[in-house]
Amino acid sequence: PPSNRAVNQLLGFLIPPLTKMGWTRRPLKVPSNLLILYSLRVFFSPMLFQIDHFGFAEDRTFKQRYLIADQHWKKDTGSILFYTGNEGDIAWFANNTGFMWNVAEEFDAILVFAEHRYYGDSLPFGNKSYTDAKHLNYLSSQQALADFAVLIQHLKNTIPGTENTPVIAIGGSYGGMLAAWFRMKYPHIVIGALAASAPIWQFDSLVPCGSFYKIVTEDFKKSGAGCSETIQNSWAAIKRIVDTEKGLQWLSHTFRLCSPLKTKTDVINFREWLRGTWIYVAMVDYPYEAAFLQPLPAWPVKAICKYLKNPKLPDRLLLQNIFQAVNIYYNYTGHASCLNLTQTTTKSLGLRGWSYQACTEMVMPMCSDGINDMFEPQKWDFHAYSEECFKAWGVRPRPSWIPTFYGGKNISAHSNIIFSNGGLDPWSGGGVTKNITDTLVAIMIPEGAHHLDLRSNSPFDPTSVLQARLLEVHYMKLWLQKHERVKTCPK
Amino acid sequence: PPSNRAVNQLLGFLIPPLTKMGWTRRPLKVPSNLLILYSLRVFFSPMLFQIDHFGFAEDRTFKQRYLIADQHWKKDTGSILFYTGNEGDIAWFANNTGFMWNVAEEFDAILVFAEHRYYGDSLPFGNKSYTDAKHLNYLSSQQALADFAVLIQHLKNTIPGTENTPVIAIGGSYGGMLAAWFRMKYPHIVIGALAASAPIWQFDSLVPCGSFYKIVTEDFKKSGAGCSETIQNSWAAIKRIVDTEKGLQWLSHTFRLCSPLKTKTDVINFREWLRGTWIYVAMVDYPYEAAFLQPLPAWPVKAICKYLKNPKLPDRLLLQNIFQAVNIYYNYTGHASCLNLTQTTTKSLGLRGWSYQACTEMVMPMCSDGINDMFEPQKWDFHAYSEECFKAWGVRPRPSWIPTFYGGKNISAHSNIIFSNGGLDPWSGGGVTKNITDTLVAIMIPEGAHHLDLRSNSPFDPTSVLQARLLEVHYMKLWLQKHERVKTCPK
Repeated sequence: PPSNRAVNQLLGFLIPPLTKMGWTRRPLKVPSNLLILYSLRVFFSPMLFQIDHFGFAEDRTFKQRYLIADQHWKKDTGSILFYTGNEGDIAWFANNTGFMWNVAEEFDAILVFAEHRYYGDSLPFGNKSYTDAKHLNYLSSQQALADFAVLIQHLKNTIPGTENTPVIAIGGSYGGMLAAWFRMKYPHIVIGALAASAPIWQFDSLVPCGSFYKIVTEDFKKSGAGCSETIQNSWAAIKRIVDTEKGLQWLSHTFRLCSPLKTKTDVINFREWLRGTWIYVAMVDYPYEAAFLQPLPAWPVKAICKYLKNPKLPDRLLLQNIFQAVNIYYNYTGHASCLNLTQTTTKSLGLRGWSYQACTEMVMPMCSDGINDMFEPQKWDFHAYSEECFKAWGVRPRPSWIPTFYGGKNISAHSNIIFSNGGLDPWSGGGVTKNITDTLVAIMIPEGAHHLDLRSNSPFDPTSVLQARLLEVHYMKLWLQKHERVKTCPK
Repeated sequence: PPSNRAVNQLLGFLIPPLTKMGWTRRPLKVPSNLLILYSLRVFFSPMLFQIDHFGFAEDRTFKQRYLIADQHWKKDTGSILFYTGNEGDIAWFANNTGFMWNVAEEFDAILVFAEHRYYGDSLPFGNKSYTDAKHLNYLSSQQALADFAVLIQHLKNTIPGTENTPVIAIGGSYGGMLAAWFRMKYPHIVIGALAASAPIWQFDSLVPCGSFYKIVTEDFKKSGAGCSETIQNSWAAIKRIVDTEKGLQWLSHTFRLCSPLKTKTDVINFREWLRGTWIYVAMVDYPYEAAFLQPLPAWPVKAICKYLKNPKLPDRLLLQNIFQAVNIYYNYTGHASCLNLTQTTTKSLGLRGWSYQACTEMVMPMCSDGINDMFEPQKWDFHAYSEECFKAWGVRPRPSWIPTFYGGKNISAHSNIIFSNGGLDPWSGGGVTKNITDTLVAIMIPEGAHHLDLRSNSPFDPTSVLQARLLEVHYMKLWLQKHERVKTCPK
């Protein structure tokens, strides 16, 4: 199967096609900070991974994909920088984690990007992997971490000279959670972890459920007068407009929707789609043109807010401006002939897998009140959430399992984890933003969006992210030095 | 179902019957250091435990048994001493872990004894739990640790005043491994662990496969001149005797076997039974009369060696002496009318569960060479082992999974674990017998057999075990003090 199809469909983002022995560089239509990936080797693991690490009745195995770049590897001084892949095609993450490519030489490092099971090409049951709850049963963070552990041991057993090479885990977002959890649960395998924009506390009642939407709102507030108020007022305007058949038609036409709105459910979906759009733009509010979730201009929230200066406009004018704003996110390249509501909720692999994970382990309570945020009031309703999950996947979420298993706020017994967070990133509300101990440190990047620090260096980077990257390298070197001391001077 | 049946059958040991609200004290026929257990409360968890913590397709729950003794509990200064139950009925472990009862007052402690799933009364699928590999699929150390984590959170949520009470894990043997692993994987739930006679390194090739039988042999060597040589010579003597039909009859008669030996397999089983006997006696070579695996005299290896002084005797005389020796282990009380070869390999619950665990995670390579030990040479043959497992349970063992998951010898990132080992204990060969860091400490008890330190204080205790217990209490108090400091003086 074409390896990048899933994430391409999901994110509308063109990835250079991955070949067996390297990358073909291909000019993208949009300016981009994409790395020139060279001499990257792509592996399907020649060793086979257990489909179930935690039980023995299912004894079958599957092939996991991982990417290796070893051009900077030096045996005696080197390290392994290991990307703990998250919910998508690993090639896409390799392309959007420039930090690792930028520091590879400094660390004499082998870069490894490990694909998360059930995503990309790493499907335990091939195209049957998503058939039902039985086939999905082995999609979990624990199984993924076990894959990573087994993979690292395999690499050390098979790449000459790496037996004693220290490994550092690196990841962003869910991948950042995995990096942190990997260090917590397998400290014998990774000497430390860089967990970028990892909302490890966005569970149960560890943080207020409203923090996420509050931060999204603050981003829009900061990015232009009248901006968040315009969005806030749009919800009522939509309600008034869709009250008539004519208004519904007008709305579909104005937003150039591929499928016109007809039913009440369509209207709900439309509002959800708008809500999702604001969230996504806030997450990728980067200081330069980039193409992470979509090709976008520099500081896209500011670009959007240019259209949203007047919250007091009559409904139709206000909503026309909302369209102009949304159009920046979905059609910055100008190629879209119409906008597709299912674009952020596509059935393609990445989101489907995450939807299952959100319905099992990854229960992240969220709520809005329309007072501290610009969204329609919406309580966190676990019961309804659970019902939806059961309908969609035939499973029930277990909201307290992640804190029970990974420690919740009580993680001070662990060591060597950097938690970095961007002040503009809605996920920072669930992140670790204060030092816990001398070796569990927090780095804040006030001008940063979702794991900006993991992206490639750019001349447009704000000082705060440059400082963050320097600090991250500093801590990683400390871990390596300490590891070296411990290794050469045993008690 | 009668709660103690399984272990009673397995170990031939009379436990006072457990009632729903307390213990009935009952005099035992053999002198014993059994504790008088009073005001012990027995619970089937009113909350339900997930049968599968790591997957969501199996969403059923089961009831887990645990015992609580809270007569020494003091809210402000107290702690929870939590026994991480191992492969058997939890009442039996509660009865044989006098250490916890002895120190309960000193720690103002609630004692909790948690039963391991699939043992005793904690059967996930009731009497179908052992039907096949599918029903046994949730029998693993990981699932057991998750049970313990959930149980502790449940107790803290339901017993008033325990919300912030520090918990220390305590266990012996496999339970000791669980205690250590519990601290490693859930340091947010237990502040430390006492892992008594826990052979966490008896896996893969972490220690030489011959160490176990070597230590057994040394015990017999130390306990009487000619003793180990007599056993060593017995194997050839048996072979010569069973060469004739008459010899076979003589052997069955001499050993008062309940079922006379007939086939070659019977003879193999006979030799396995003898080998097992020597192992068990070495494990329970306690300095006083005790009834752990069997009712036995003080220093049972010495008692046995009294019959095994002359290795040069003719076959029949030598084997008659072997019988006298074996008879001490199986018939110290004098009540046995015949000896039953299946007594150490009974089908009762405890051993069945352990057999499954040994065929999945708990793969402990063992070998003998007949030179450094008194046993018949036997190589470690993983292939044959795996075949047997597949025949018996329909599963294949994964010998490297435990080291991958729990860290093997590379555990220095963890903290607050005491590894105690007895010099007479064959399992000490796979244990941690040297300090790893300041907080991962080893305590050796040269005169100790299998987790002697966890047993009740006795006037016959050698000084080394008294010192060990003092040290254990000292470290546990250090953890509590440090926890107290951290709690009241946050950064």
